[in-house]
Amino acid sequence: MTRPTPLDPPARLLMGPGPISAYPRVLRAMSAPLVGQYDPFMTGAMGEVQELYREVWATRNEQTFVIDGTSRAGIAAALVSLIRPGDRGLVPVFGRFGHLLAEIAERALAEVHTIEVEWGQVVPVSMIEEAIVRVRPTLLALVQGDTSTTMNQPLDEIGALGEKHGVLFYCDATASLGGNDFEADRWGLDAATAGLQKCLGGPSGSSPITLSDRAVEVIRSRARVEAGIREAGDESAADFIRSNYFDLGMIIDYWGPRRLNHHTEATSMLYAARECAAVLLSEGRANVIARHRLAGDAMLAGVRGLGLTVFGDVAHKMNNVVAVEIPDGVPGDAARQAMLEDFGIEIGTSFGPLHGRVWRIGTMGYNARKDAVLTTLAALEQVLRRHIPVPAGGGVDAALDVYRVSA
Amino acid sequence: MTRPTPLDPPARLLMGPGPISAYPRVLRAMSAPLVGQYDPFMTGAMGEVQELYREVWATRNEQTFVIDGTSRAGIAAALVSLIRPGDRGLVPVFGRFGHLLAEIAERALAEVHTIEVEWGQVVPVSMIEEAIVRVRPTLLALVQGDTSTTMNQPLDEIGALGEKHGVLFYCDATASLGGNDFEADRWGLDAATAGLQKCLGGPSGSSPITLSDRAVEVIRSRARVEAGIREAGDESAADFIRSNYFDLGMIIDYWGPRRLNHHTEATSMLYAARECAAVLLSEGRANVIARHRLAGDAMLAGVRGLGLTVFGDVAHKMNNVVAVEIPDGVPGDAARQAMLEDFGIEIGTSFGPLHGRVWRIGTMGYNARKDAVLTTLAALEQVLRRHIPVPAGGGVDAALDVYRVSA
Repeated sequence: MTRPTPLDPPARLLMGPGPISAYPRVLRAMSAPLVGQYDPFMTGAMGEVQELYREVWATRNEQTFVIDGTSRAGIAAALVSLIRPGDRGLVPVFGRFGHLLAEIAERALAEVHTIEVEWGQVVPVSMIEEAIVRVRPTLLALVQGDTSTTMNQPLDEIGALGEKHGVLFYCDATASLGGNDFEADRWGLDAATAGLQKCLGGPSGSSPITLSDRAVEVIRSRARVEAGIREAGDESAADFIRSNYFDLGMIIDYWGPRRLNHHTEATSMLYAARECAAVLLSEGRANVIARHRLAGDAMLAGVRGLGLTVFGDVAHKMNNVVAVEIPDGVPGDAARQAMLEDFGIEIGTSFGPLHGRVWRIGTMGYNARKDAVLTTLAALEQVLRRHIPVPAGGGVDAALDVYRVSA
Repeated sequence: MTRPTPLDPPARLLMGPGPISAYPRVLRAMSAPLVGQYDPFMTGAMGEVQELYREVWATRNEQTFVIDGTSRAGIAAALVSLIRPGDRGLVPVFGRFGHLLAEIAERALAEVHTIEVEWGQVVPVSMIEEAIVRVRPTLLALVQGDTSTTMNQPLDEIGALGEKHGVLFYCDATASLGGNDFEADRWGLDAATAGLQKCLGGPSGSSPITLSDRAVEVIRSRARVEAGIREAGDESAADFIRSNYFDLGMIIDYWGPRRLNHHTEATSMLYAARECAAVLLSEGRANVIARHRLAGDAMLAGVRGLGLTVFGDVAHKMNNVVAVEIPDGVPGDAARQAMLEDFGIEIGTSFGPLHGRVWRIGTMGYNARKDAVLTTLAALEQVLRRHIPVPAGGGVDAALDVYRVSA
């Protein structure tokens, strides 16, 4: 074991719920040479990341940057910085990731209230308002796209609710950002976080975040500069944020003109985050979302063309993932394994009540492409017909029709 | 800004206190294609990372893996998982990073006691034992190599102290691992964490960690499985870890045979961590440490050959970094800037009381190389002689002598 061979991953077309195959340009950026953490190139790249992601989020928020960790790290940073122990948090749950927000808020010792709808549905705005009035939370935390069910929660009326009732509004856009409409400012978001490994087409490990002025005010009111770099005038709030790594105030001061040392920015992941946004904005934000919509529509038509039943409220499906019920007579896990072993294509199953009941097929980032959609459907047809009758060419033809109509 | 140019960092020889230039083989690994998070290749690579880092740490600890975040994330995971709110923690401080351990433990609401020695010294074992007896802490947290002062704290007698007094012993080896002796098992460590961006020769963003069975027991006693993936029999401890992202119990279950979904492992950073260890073990652990010692000795002789005064207790200096006092008549920041702009070489300054008083020059990872040492000394001579008289060739010749003697 002391002379391990070079790393050599197998060829994979990642068509699951994410992570998915990264854009080649993003992978190339990750092998770029490192520079020092205060090198003018590095601070310049950090500034560029801030500007690029303002455009990705559709926001003018000054405080827009990335957290060094996976998408879950971004969620933790937002929640632990915005909720004080004992504060009430409201989390509408429509899948596994709503439970995660509740869990992370509970770890921060918030008093967490949840409202739930059946998996496969989104949460009606009226239900959210009713809960806000009843619970009177400090913070509303809501997933946009929950990959566990593929549902895409409408957000356009929620911000106004938050404003009306004086509630901070946080959104977890991990699975949706870049492949579905997102308007941080227009929708009145106070905080939102994401990950690179879904529609942004990069690797997991960096979490874009954006914070409104109102959110920054809450964070600033809990300021604490650490001993070792503390200077005169740096006071510590009594209700300081219960995490150094996720203290957004310190992270803001590291990204800002003070450049106060906090973590050592993860250079290669910063390069990746920068390149993900650059790829997206070079193609055009609206174009990329349209490409996701088209690929999603084609995959939806394709799986239906294979005779499969789609799970959930299709009118509220995310563009970038579809859940199909595993047909009777088909062993779900063995079929996924055949997809991987015979065709090098990964598709997913789901969590909790949906584990083994659905497959999840993604079309996101680099893989929101016609050839990726058609190849996946062709392979899936071959795997299905080992177990049940399927219409020959039914998936590919239906998907091609969608592409033809859009051309 | 919507059509940003491709990322293109300038040529830099990073000879500061880290991050430093990564091994080319590590950078190449980062551009390898992604695979799914439960792909056999991925779980295989995770297993390989565990095995490789057991060898890097010199441990048989089953629980050896990486945390997705910078080295500070590893520290946070260890401390927040091992210290309960109200527990007493003891932190001997001999530089900026001792203060950081205290700070992170305070955020976890531990009752933190520190003992301090002057910057430039290490902490006598007797002083640590005296404090253990007085404070009776649950956990002793100690930095091995503190780059702020370049000191390398001897650890070989501390584990026995911990055992004698029933104290968990955690070590932050961020700046030292891979370039200085480290013997996790022989020294009786219960937990240790590091980063890739120093002697391991990779980018910041992944933190190797190792945990003794005793540490795992403490962590297991605080178990809480999150809602959404909780199953019958998964109970939640009252003193659960106050962070989901840094809950080492959940991370262990993600890395272990249960493969319980937690974060989505950062694939490219895992590749980097894997390759850092592979490079080190291919050359041989002892050989790499010897290479660091030689490069450090050469740089030490070199800066002295230029007439510079070395800061601190040189007998306890880390192999991989030296602090030199900025001579009278030389503007410290302008000289660093000239090194960067004229020669593409980065050297550092330090924090707090040493800011602007010393330069820190590193020789670590890929850059613990003769040509990197000599080039840096040649450039430094040129920059110094713009301000003060320096012996021509004094740095390079003295360093070359060290290399000649060792050959």
